[in-house]
Amino acid sequence: MNAVESTLEVASFTPYPITHHPIHIELHEESMTVTWDHQHKSEYHYLWLRDNCHCPECISTKTREQVFEICDVPYTIKPSNAYITDDHRIVVDWDYADHTSKYHPGWLLSHCYSEEVVQSKQWKPILWDKERITTELPRAKSSTLIQSDEVLLTWLRDLRDYGIGIVSDVGTELGSLKAVTDRIAFMRESNYGTLFDVTTTAKANTSANTNIRLPLHTDLSARELQPGLQFLHCLVNDATGGESIYVDGFKIAEYMREHHPEEFRDLSTIPMTFNNKDPYCDYNYRSTVIATDSNGEVTEVRHANFIRVPIDVPAHQTMALYKAYQCFIRLTREPAFQLFFRLTAGEMVVFDNRRVLHARNAFDLKTGMRQLQGCYIDRDEFLSRIRILERSTTLSGS
Amino acid sequence: MNAVESTLEVASFTPYPITHHPIHIELHEESMTVTWDHQHKSEYHYLWLRDNCHCPECISTKTREQVFEICDVPYTIKPSNAYITDDHRIVVDWDYADHTSKYHPGWLLSHCYSEEVVQSKQWKPILWDKERITTELPRAKSSTLIQSDEVLLTWLRDLRDYGIGIVSDVGTELGSLKAVTDRIAFMRESNYGTLFDVTTTAKANTSANTNIRLPLHTDLSARELQPGLQFLHCLVNDATGGESIYVDGFKIAEYMREHHPEEFRDLSTIPMTFNNKDPYCDYNYRSTVIATDSNGEVTEVRHANFIRVPIDVPAHQTMALYKAYQCFIRLTREPAFQLFFRLTAGEMVVFDNRRVLHARNAFDLKTGMRQLQGCYIDRDEFLSRIRILERSTTLSGS
Repeated sequence: MNAVESTLEVASFTPYPITHHPIHIELHEESMTVTWDHQHKSEYHYLWLRDNCHCPECISTKTREQVFEICDVPYTIKPSNAYITDDHRIVVDWDYADHTSKYHPGWLLSHCYSEEVVQSKQWKPILWDKERITTELPRAKSSTLIQSDEVLLTWLRDLRDYGIGIVSDVGTELGSLKAVTDRIAFMRESNYGTLFDVTTTAKANTSANTNIRLPLHTDLSARELQPGLQFLHCLVNDATGGESIYVDGFKIAEYMREHHPEEFRDLSTIPMTFNNKDPYCDYNYRSTVIATDSNGEVTEVRHANFIRVPIDVPAHQTMALYKAYQCFIRLTREPAFQLFFRLTAGEMVVFDNRRVLHARNAFDLKTGMRQLQGCYIDRDEFLSRIRILERSTTLSGS
Repeated sequence: MNAVESTLEVASFTPYPITHHPIHIELHEESMTVTWDHQHKSEYHYLWLRDNCHCPECISTKTREQVFEICDVPYTIKPSNAYITDDHRIVVDWDYADHTSKYHPGWLLSHCYSEEVVQSKQWKPILWDKERITTELPRAKSSTLIQSDEVLLTWLRDLRDYGIGIVSDVGTELGSLKAVTDRIAFMRESNYGTLFDVTTTAKANTSANTNIRLPLHTDLSARELQPGLQFLHCLVNDATGGESIYVDGFKIAEYMREHHPEEFRDLSTIPMTFNNKDPYCDYNYRSTVIATDSNGEVTEVRHANFIRVPIDVPAHQTMALYKAYQCFIRLTREPAFQLFFRLTAGEMVVFDNRRVLHARNAFDLKTGMRQLQGCYIDRDEFLSRIRILERSTTLSGS
């Protein structure tokens, strides 16, 4: 078919304002270079261009999803003709199946995949130690989070970047944290249900429900997907002791990468297994303590020594893994990395459970009650909520 | 403290019967070799042995979780003395902090981490093509799954190994699939809720709810954790067309590894991004199409061309990724790999959504109704359920 004006020219909830025009195109063997009027050059491969044809034959007019599949054209597909129109679109006639594609300049420039552009869009966490987080710890009042989308968005972005924040004035009723979590998304269910109580019980199947010291850890580390955001709402805290300690696991990982590169490498490549069992469930997951993505960026920390099972890696890796693991735990115990505070009734701490390790000192039940209620919301839902708020508020995307 | 008899000698729900006795120990620089009475030799590193001390000072008597942390002893810790007792325990006196550990022979042998032992315990999927699955497709009746733990366990193991199975006589009421899923675990919630209906709606935000052909895909591929088991229960299927197609993605991956090694490597190392948006949510996840674990074993396939976003990898990887991706999609379209069938009312197909791709032919609404109901249960819960059933049934573990 021939290129026609399509209502689907830009099929997305994201607007693509035209900020620059293409002024020149140059055709190579496998790709085209587009020069823009601000002198930026973008390289687009022919397969990429054909893949991203926006015509109504390639994209469903009903669902805005791609119907075309790239394996239906030859790997060697090329333009038979390509030009810039008077209204600044790029048009490509293909040498296969008599197809024509037309590209919107706002969409095309915003999808430039040169390494510098992709790199510049990369999100980076704000890493913290005790000193930094003591002055910068994000705080918000429950009522403003509930009333204002803009306050909520600012707060969620801080939470994403620092991995931790405090909400005050949540109330001291069971379930009152829900007024805040409902502003974000549904809760992640686990074998502990959706809302869980952290109180001391006689038949504890987990150390959380005792009064003993809980060393630094991430929750549910025996699950493939450790819960993302963890909410811990303090209802009563009259017992002596029970202070909370938080450590930025990403900071520890980056400190290791810089100062103990071998230990960083070993802890991010040699796996261990975590297991959590009780009479009703038996979870098991094998993973590295530090997880990295294809760019080598740290994406997750998984650490709960008390449910780790015996190490079972090949003999030549055993000592290396122990060395790296000892290094990691020792660093998390350094006071210079630790945020130390005592939650008061009505306060809630929220943190990225896959990044920020948490611990609790032992407490003395004879001196008073201590009762927390918690829940989880996964990263997917959290980040989706930020994107949705960014569509509708006047705060610019970041 | 000195070693004492401990009720925690084996702190686990798993029994460790004593099948062999240690007959000799040999001490090396960093590890000890234990020779068993069937001549098997196990190497245990000193740090590993100290790490796995079962005394009540190292493991909480209350929760059975480890209290000791390995970073509290030197990396160079060694036995000052080690011996086999008359009742076949191995005892180690440590050269640090006057501590003694005592090892149960059943526990110790079952935790031997020699590569051959670890390798022999490794689960392997049963890979299938059209021919194999046509004769071996696991089938079960809803009523027997509900009544018998042993039938249920056999069925769940088949489902784990083949990644697909059929349940018959589920009924044709909305919600009747719950009698089966409740036998496994709670459902995974998503933005579509927990129970979802696959019916044609006018305002479709996903191709699933139209009558068009759905190409082979995994569900919710824009989520970090794609749902594990998918249940699709057929309530009505009177429309012409709408046949289901299933392909074992692990089989395709292994076929690529063997016949197209470069494409396998590229598709398992170069990522792409998946995005799923509607007015209320905006999910985004970047991952490789084929995921492998630290042993190189395939653990997941992620594929939904219609929600993949424009490829944005460095220019030198772009063509390689397209070549690998074309190869993958073409293979999934080969009839020799495809299980093709038509669900009838009352039947339910269950499959590992992170392994088995599914597709649906277009159907003609003028010829009749088509209505499915579905839900997800994640791999963690599914595998936990198998382990729990293995504790209580007479079927041996596998």
